[in-house]
Amino acid sequence: MKVLGVDPGLTRCGVGVVDGVAGRPLTMVGVGVVRTPADADTAHRLVLIERGIDEWLDIHRPEYVAVERVFSQHNVRTVMGTAQASAVAMLCAARRGLPVALHTPSEVKAAVTGSGRADKAQVGAMVTRLLRLAEPPKPADAADALALAICHIWRAPAVNRLQRAQAAARRTPAPVRTLKGTR
Amino acid sequence: MKVLGVDPGLTRCGVGVVDGVAGRPLTMVGVGVVRTPADADTAHRLVLIERGIDEWLDIHRPEYVAVERVFSQHNVRTVMGTAQASAVAMLCAARRGLPVALHTPSEVKAAVTGSGRADKAQVGAMVTRLLRLAEPPKPADAADALALAICHIWRAPAVNRLQRAQAAARRTPAPVRTLKGTR
Repeated sequence: MKVLGVDPGLTRCGVGVVDGVAGRPLTMVGVGVVRTPADADTAHRLVLIERGIDEWLDIHRPEYVAVERVFSQHNVRTVMGTAQASAVAMLCAARRGLPVALHTPSEVKAAVTGSGRADKAQVGAMVTRLLRLAEPPKPADAADALALAICHIWRAPAVNRLQRAQAAARRTPAPVRTLKGTR
Repeated sequence: MKVLGVDPGLTRCGVGVVDGVAGRPLTMVGVGVVRTPADADTAHRLVLIERGIDEWLDIHRPEYVAVERVFSQHNVRTVMGTAQASAVAMLCAARRGLPVALHTPSEVKAAVTGSGRADKAQVGAMVTRLLRLAEPPKPADAADALALAICHIWRAPAVNRLQRAQAAARRTPAPVRTLKGTR
């Protein structure tokens, strides 16, 4: 199974594609960062993130997308941007009928290092080892995106099958809405 | 000028279109709510919101979109959903090159009632009077969306012109990103 991991952020969205199945060696298909200029307005930055994610989906055709679950316990300003960037990533995937899974940072850390409180360096080191890379992917957002993809491959084969069936079943419903116009 | 106001939410997105200029009587063009089922997963709900907003943009062709600015001071779970829904609304508008303005709830209340701490009933009553409606729009999210559009028409003619020029200038840039693939 091929998974696109997305570590969402307005300034830097880490993206990484991993192919493989649980219990076998995994392969890195691609890794990178979608960046947007800090001085652009938020709406325009979201458009750039959409283009970047769509491009990764077009090029690598993943079967699943794993996005980091955002909590609002940290810096308020940062969290809003992260929530908005994650919404765009989820939208791009769901629009294509791809199942979207959310994993918390501690689930990802626990999956790849064995500890939910591992630091960035440990995550980077384990990603490097698990994907048999020459050096840790940089920046850290890119390594985190690969860790998300690995976590997803290992964590929930059963959940994946269920989500996939659900996504396929709802590929063509009409939007639920009401619309009134006076002109 | 024709403005689409969006009061973002995962369960209910209020949408309202108002036409007019500051200092003249305003006209309601349309009002409604984009709803998504509470039991659907977030990614799918964002797709439904995108379809709903796109439909409003297609039908009413507003020149500006005003979205309520989200703060994370309230309930954490609700705020995340609101931030995600607002991201989709901003994305839909910016993708078409439409200028997006964000107004805080207190700016909107102050614009239509004269007080930044007005309650829902006061906002609904003033929206009804300003748009010469037979009765207050329901639900409250729909009235809030109209209030946002009115606030935008009254608040910043100069800001609008600037934003419009900026949006036009950047309609075709390439996304800023790095992309590395090993396959």
